[in-house]
Amino acid sequence: MAAERLVVIGGDAAGMSAASQARRFKGPEELEIVAFERGDFASYSACGIPYWVGGDVAERDDLIARTPREHRERGIDLRMRTEALEIDTAARRVRARDLDTGSDTWTDFDKLVIATGARPIRPPLPGIDAPGVHGVQTLGDGQALIETLTRTGGNGGRAVVVGAGYIGVEMAEALLKRGYEVTVLHRDEQPMATLDPDMGRLVHEAMDGLGITTVGGAAVTKILTGDDGRVRAVVTEDAEYPADVVVLGIGVRPQTALAEAAGLPLGPHGGLLTDQSMRVRGHENIWAGGDCVEVLDLLTGTTRHIALGTHANKHGQIIGANVGGDYGTFPGVVGTAVSKVCDREIARTGLREKDARAAGLQYVSATIESTGTAGYLPGAQLMTVKMLAERRTGRLLGVQIVGGEGAAKRVDIAAVALTARMTVEQMTALDLGYAPPFSPVWDPVLVAARKTTAAVRKAGW
Amino acid sequence: MAAERLVVIGGDAAGMSAASQARRFKGPEELEIVAFERGDFASYSACGIPYWVGGDVAERDDLIARTPREHRERGIDLRMRTEALEIDTAARRVRARDLDTGSDTWTDFDKLVIATGARPIRPPLPGIDAPGVHGVQTLGDGQALIETLTRTGGNGGRAVVVGAGYIGVEMAEALLKRGYEVTVLHRDEQPMATLDPDMGRLVHEAMDGLGITTVGGAAVTKILTGDDGRVRAVVTEDAEYPADVVVLGIGVRPQTALAEAAGLPLGPHGGLLTDQSMRVRGHENIWAGGDCVEVLDLLTGTTRHIALGTHANKHGQIIGANVGGDYGTFPGVVGTAVSKVCDREIARTGLREKDARAAGLQYVSATIESTGTAGYLPGAQLMTVKMLAERRTGRLLGVQIVGGEGAAKRVDIAAVALTARMTVEQMTALDLGYAPPFSPVWDPVLVAARKTTAAVRKAGW
Repeated sequence: MAAERLVVIGGDAAGMSAASQARRFKGPEELEIVAFERGDFASYSACGIPYWVGGDVAERDDLIARTPREHRERGIDLRMRTEALEIDTAARRVRARDLDTGSDTWTDFDKLVIATGARPIRPPLPGIDAPGVHGVQTLGDGQALIETLTRTGGNGGRAVVVGAGYIGVEMAEALLKRGYEVTVLHRDEQPMATLDPDMGRLVHEAMDGLGITTVGGAAVTKILTGDDGRVRAVVTEDAEYPADVVVLGIGVRPQTALAEAAGLPLGPHGGLLTDQSMRVRGHENIWAGGDCVEVLDLLTGTTRHIALGTHANKHGQIIGANVGGDYGTFPGVVGTAVSKVCDREIARTGLREKDARAAGLQYVSATIESTGTAGYLPGAQLMTVKMLAERRTGRLLGVQIVGGEGAAKRVDIAAVALTARMTVEQMTALDLGYAPPFSPVWDPVLVAARKTTAAVRKAGW
Repeated sequence: MAAERLVVIGGDAAGMSAASQARRFKGPEELEIVAFERGDFASYSACGIPYWVGGDVAERDDLIARTPREHRERGIDLRMRTEALEIDTAARRVRARDLDTGSDTWTDFDKLVIATGARPIRPPLPGIDAPGVHGVQTLGDGQALIETLTRTGGNGGRAVVVGAGYIGVEMAEALLKRGYEVTVLHRDEQPMATLDPDMGRLVHEAMDGLGITTVGGAAVTKILTGDDGRVRAVVTEDAEYPADVVVLGIGVRPQTALAEAAGLPLGPHGGLLTDQSMRVRGHENIWAGGDCVEVLDLLTGTTRHIALGTHANKHGQIIGANVGGDYGTFPGVVGTAVSKVCDREIARTGLREKDARAAGLQYVSATIESTGTAGYLPGAQLMTVKMLAERRTGRLLGVQIVGGEGAAKRVDIAAVALTARMTVEQMTALDLGYAPPFSPVWDPVLVAARKTTAAVRKAGW
């Protein structure tokens, strides 16, 4: 019999990474691992769903990194379609229900990992649950959406996407590829509200150019259905948008009702609060990671909720190491995110103008346009780089990039510079890779750093 | 009359950037600027020559960033085909020859910028000066090579490239595109000796796959000519390689005979030595930049000679600022370079194994293979990342990458991390951009950092 039992709640990125990593450090004779997943899939790439819907990824199972059977072969007792309903922290046990039989069982734990993820925001609007209205959070959601698309026939069909964040723009691309006439309704002035509006405008223009209609300042009030009960149109305060299919991409919230009921500490965004080893604050034997936690923003010192597979995988690795007797920490994030809509790449890291203001930071900014390769090469793609630096100190605060090929991943330069707390003047001297097919002689990030340095100086003391 | 006169020797990247930047700070009434360029072209991209030869760039003039006339319109007295022959530091004057009239003139200066560039290594072999043997340093060289290619007719022709560094592999690609059967002769075990041999081998394999023959350990002994006096073959110690055209890409040396004759300080690689403001050591009023100087290697504390347009442009900007009464410094380099041969991207930054050894640093290394995008997307490209870290401290020492699309510029992540003196363990937590079209959920650089961290630990104390 194993000396200890680890229970994992949630069978996707964070949970199963934690389980797998813990298993690397401790064999089944030392550590029994039980994982509960209430859905039909484990260890899959939710971020890949838009590319499956859009047809780039042929098969649903291509998005599955490791099957339940593979987990079980590695000594992880992964129980699918089993929903954790209660955590008893005092008695160290979890009550879980087998969704097929309906029976509940208590399982004792020595160590617990909470990786319950996030749930998409689904406003309680009339008609929101009508057939043809889809979220894209789980593989099941993706499958249901693809079935609707197959039914409504693609070419000539009308699709409405509600929300113009990462999921919204990626789904707009996917639906465009499937032959739909696509309208994106969003509440803010510009799409991609994770960018400043001046940069969001570039995304807006790119979507226009692709034939995607974007409607800003649009508050959806209800969803109309036809005689067959299926979605027929989306209604806002100002207009009605006919729709054969509706995709919701409004954002997600941490899924922490279970943790809250157990008295575990939640942050201002509703996510679990952990220490740097990803241990739930105040609880020696409980860890949490992935989309259900809040993470430290290294620039503001406050916590944020960022649902991203890359963070979830890091959390899982770190939790697994700590549970397994090794040591790892997650120091925090700078808020890097990349996306694209067709050939237009979108990236951001650090603080937007409004984030800087909210953090009490005075800043200057500069925006430049350059090409991703030497301008004399055919097909050189334009990109716009906006950079923010703290007034006086010149410390880099954030970078946003919108442009053609090579734009998005350039943000990594800024992500590392933010982590290292570089000034924009220090950045002007960065020894970045240069050759004509990869960069102009002044990389766009260097050009932005130079212009921002000049703005810092001009703002003076 | 201007209060001061600035004389610039060399009209390419560093020299004309310095002149232009100085002009931004001081108008013609304050600062007279005279620049000598012995060639027929100024302010051009030598790095673009392979892409012009290969046909990507249509016109020679596309490579010219600013014409002599444009410089003159901005109040810079740029004298083309005028060669500086002597610097009299005591009397603060330069003797220059008008190459068309043959007349020499002394020009007084208050401030001097030396930007004489580098000259290609051209070993004194029999036949090296035969028609059909080409360097690719200047636009004139490129023009001459293109004339030879036009004459020898392309398809079915045989080209031999001597040297397999950046220029060598880029020219191999260009000649392949022109329809030549290409052989690359190089002295080292593997091509791209700026990489460790295990990574160079990947370049070798890629070139093989492209149909480029590479011959390592090949020391060229002579060049044979035909009855018409034109090149006919390249001879090594072991074999003879028929050639309709030969391109020399053996490397370059700082062009500092003029500076040396004037008693200015040269470093171990023959380049001028400057302080961080790019002022020639010990000379209050003389600056130097670009391919004729040595730069500080931030990792070893020694100086290196690196001929790269991106450094030359930075030097020019800094010199221009300092000459113009502003302030700028060039702190040094980490040794980043990127290149490609057809669709195979090549990048390096920091120290190779032999550099680390030469610097007295003990190190560990790890090599990983991953994809540039999510592995489930069609066309996901493999890349190999090798990472070196100092033993015990785990400080990043260097990264080399060879792979498909998205490989080369990923090295920038490491370039910034090197500049910030990060450890590989710190790098494992970097918040890099993730979305399926841009990266697997673990970016290859993160995977390499994790594996190198494990190697650091395993090596112990």
